[in-house]
Amino acid sequence: MLAEIITIGDEILIGQVVDTNSAFLAAELNKVGIRVGQITSISDQRNPILTALDEAAKRAGLVVITGGLGPTSDDITKQTLADYFHTKLALKKEVLDHIRNLLAARGVEVNDRNIRQAELPESCRLLHNASGTAQGMWFEKKGTVFISLPGVPYEMESIMKDYALPQIKEFFHLPPLRHITVLTHGLAESAMAMKIEPWEKALPASVRLAYLPSPGILRLRLSCFDPERKNGPELVTEELAKLRRLISEYIFGYDNDTIEEVTGRLLREKKRTLAVAESCTGGKIASLITSVPGCSDYFLGSVTAYSNTSKCAILGVNQASIQSHGAVSQAVVEEMARGARERFGADISIATTGIAGPSGGSVDKPVGTTWIAVATDHIVRSEKFILGEHRGRNISKAAVAALFMLRKELMRIP
Amino acid sequence: MLAEIITIGDEILIGQVVDTNSAFLAAELNKVGIRVGQITSISDQRNPILTALDEAAKRAGLVVITGGLGPTSDDITKQTLADYFHTKLALKKEVLDHIRNLLAARGVEVNDRNIRQAELPESCRLLHNASGTAQGMWFEKKGTVFISLPGVPYEMESIMKDYALPQIKEFFHLPPLRHITVLTHGLAESAMAMKIEPWEKALPASVRLAYLPSPGILRLRLSCFDPERKNGPELVTEELAKLRRLISEYIFGYDNDTIEEVTGRLLREKKRTLAVAESCTGGKIASLITSVPGCSDYFLGSVTAYSNTSKCAILGVNQASIQSHGAVSQAVVEEMARGARERFGADISIATTGIAGPSGGSVDKPVGTTWIAVATDHIVRSEKFILGEHRGRNISKAAVAALFMLRKELMRIP
Repeated sequence: MLAEIITIGDEILIGQVVDTNSAFLAAELNKVGIRVGQITSISDQRNPILTALDEAAKRAGLVVITGGLGPTSDDITKQTLADYFHTKLALKKEVLDHIRNLLAARGVEVNDRNIRQAELPESCRLLHNASGTAQGMWFEKKGTVFISLPGVPYEMESIMKDYALPQIKEFFHLPPLRHITVLTHGLAESAMAMKIEPWEKALPASVRLAYLPSPGILRLRLSCFDPERKNGPELVTEELAKLRRLISEYIFGYDNDTIEEVTGRLLREKKRTLAVAESCTGGKIASLITSVPGCSDYFLGSVTAYSNTSKCAILGVNQASIQSHGAVSQAVVEEMARGARERFGADISIATTGIAGPSGGSVDKPVGTTWIAVATDHIVRSEKFILGEHRGRNISKAAVAALFMLRKELMRIP
Repeated sequence: MLAEIITIGDEILIGQVVDTNSAFLAAELNKVGIRVGQITSISDQRNPILTALDEAAKRAGLVVITGGLGPTSDDITKQTLADYFHTKLALKKEVLDHIRNLLAARGVEVNDRNIRQAELPESCRLLHNASGTAQGMWFEKKGTVFISLPGVPYEMESIMKDYALPQIKEFFHLPPLRHITVLTHGLAESAMAMKIEPWEKALPASVRLAYLPSPGILRLRLSCFDPERKNGPELVTEELAKLRRLISEYIFGYDNDTIEEVTGRLLREKKRTLAVAESCTGGKIASLITSVPGCSDYFLGSVTAYSNTSKCAILGVNQASIQSHGAVSQAVVEEMARGARERFGADISIATTGIAGPSGGSVDKPVGTTWIAVATDHIVRSEKFILGEHRGRNISKAAVAALFMLRKELMRIP
C-alpha cells in the first residue's frame, strides 16, 4: 500500500515556512502500515495542483493533500478539487452552523469569508474539523482515495487522527509492517558503520538500515518494507536483538524518545529533583526539560545567568573566580552547578557556560568553548567541550551534551 | 527562471526528519530571483531518483538535490548520479587530502568509508565542502544544471552560500524579482482580509498576496513573480506603501524579522535592560531572547521558577499570595515580574505563570489559563490569556504574547 503527500502553498516554495505537516502525515501513515512514496510541494495555482493530483494518482492508492483551505483569497484549492472530481461547490448547512458556533465561542463575528468556508464540493465526504473553520474532505476517483486537509498544523493533525485515519484503516487492508529506531550517543556515523558492518551485511533483503545523524545523536532505523512477507515485524525484532548486543553501551532510547524524556524518566525512577544553571545555553535546557508533560514532578527550576553580576548575585558564584579564570571556566561552571543545587534545594544540578558566538571568542577561548558541570550531594564533575562556530548549533549541542552528562550521573545511582 | 528541489532520503518519507533543507534552499534561490516550482521528496533508491531527475529536468532549468551523500551504505545517490550523467566514479586526490586533513583535525582516524567519499563522478565540477567529507557536485545535461549537495544542514548551507550560489548567479541571467513580507500582530486572518480587501482587489496582476498565519503572528507576503516585467521591485514597493497606510498599527516587522529580534532592537535603542521570570513557559522566553546574537547587551537573565518554593525563595513571591490566589494568578505573576526586575537589577521585566497542560487544569482555571505581566520602575501591568489545550502550542503562544507585551511597553518609552 503506497501513499503520496501533496503540500500546497507558495509559502513553502519561497522557503518561508518549513513543511512540518508532511513529517507528521508520513509518520502517521507509516504507523498504520502505509508507505509514503513521494512528498510533493507545489504552488497554490490551478495547473500545478491538477498535474500533481494526476501524477500522484498514477503511483499511489492514497493521496493526502494539505494546505490551501484558509478563509483568504490565496486559497483556490477547493474550487480546483471540485473541478478535478467533476462536482460543484455547495453550501453545507451543518458546516455553517459549526463555523458560527466556533467563532461565537471565540467572540469573533462571522464574516463573508467565513461563510464561504461552508461551501464545499458536493460529492465529498466531510472530515470534521472540531477546532477550525476549514473542513477536511474525502474523495474517491478510479480506485484512489484523496484526502484534503487544511494546512494549519494542529487542525490538520486532529482531523487526521480523529477522522481520516480510522476511515483509512477501514477502507484499506494493510499488511504487517514495522519500523524501529535505535537512538545512540557516543559514536560518530562512520565509526558506528564500521562497528556494525558484519551484522549489517548479513541483514535479510527485506530489512533495511538507515543512519540518521543529528547534533550529538545518531539514530539507526531498521525497517521491513516488503509487503508480501508476513513475518516483517518478527524479522525486525530479531535483528534488533542482535544489534543491541553489539552496541548496548551507546543506546539511550528507541523510536520517538528524546534525551529530555529519557533523563526525565530516570529522575522520576531514581526519585531525584533537578535544578539548572545556564549561561551560554540561555534557557534552552530548561525549555527542553519543560517540554515534557509532568516534568514538575522532578524539575524545580533554572536560572539563566547571562550577566556576571547575576552569576554572583543569584547563583552565588565567587566574584574572584570570574576575575581569575573568566566566566567561561571550570571554576565558574562548577560554582554555578553548586549554586543552582543549593538555591533550588535540588538533589542534582547541571550548569553550562560558554561562548556561543558569533562574537566573544579569543585565541585562548575560541567561539564554541563550553564548560558543562553536574553536581550531586557528594561530587561535582565538569567537562570542557569545543563546539563549532554557529550560535544556534552551539546552543543546541551544549544543551544536549548537558543532558547526556546528567543521564550518565543518574545511571550511576543504584 | 524556474528551479526544482529534490530531497533524497527515507527519513523524510517515514516522517522521522522534518525537511528544513528545502526551506533554506527555496529562500536562497528566491533571493537571487529564481522561483522554485516544486519540491519533491523521494526514497534513496535508484529508480525513484532517476524518475525524479527526469521529471524535474522537463520543467526546470536548475535542479538542486540534497541528501544521500553520507559515508554509510544507505547512500546510493552518487552512483545513481554517475549513471544518469553517463560517467563513472573515480578517486579524486584533492578530495581525499581534504578528508584526511579534516578528520585529522578532529582526531578521527580515516576509514574505508571515508576514503570512498573521495570517489566522485568524473564529469562533475566539485563544490567544496569545507566543513564535511561529502562534496557538492555540479552537472550539466541538455541545458539543465543539476547541483547535488549533502543532507547535513550546515554543510549543505555553506556549500550553497559559498560555492553554488555564486556560480548559479554567473551561469544564469536573472530578471528582477521581489518578495516582501509584512509581519503583523493583533488581527486574525479573516479580519485582516476584510480590512485590506479593497486594496487587495486592486492589486496589479503581477503582484500576489499571501496570508501566512502562525501562533500570535500573521504574515502578509507580497511578491512579483512576472519574469517579463522589468518594474517588479518598484511595483511591490508601491503596493507595500499603500498597505502600510492601511494597517500600520498592526505591523511589527518585515521579512525575516522575529519578535525576539524586534524587542531586542527596541531594548538596545531605548537603552533598557531586561530580566525574565518564567513558570509555564519553562525557559522558552529566555531561549528565544538568547537566540539573538549580541543579546547580552540588554538581557541580564531569567529564572524559571517551576516549583512554588522557588517562586518564593528565588523571586521573592509572597507565600500568602500563592495560598490565597494560587500560583496561576494576577497577584503571583505581578510579584514574579517585580522579583525578577529587582533580583537582576533590570530596567524592565516580564513574567508568566499558567497551566500549560495536558494536566493540572480545573473548572475555574482550565488548561491554557495564563497570566503575563510586565514591570518597569513605575508600573506593573498584567493580562490574562485563555490559550488552548496543547502543551507545546500553549508554551509558544504564551512566550510570544509576553514578548508582544514587552514590545508594547517599550514603545511607550519616548
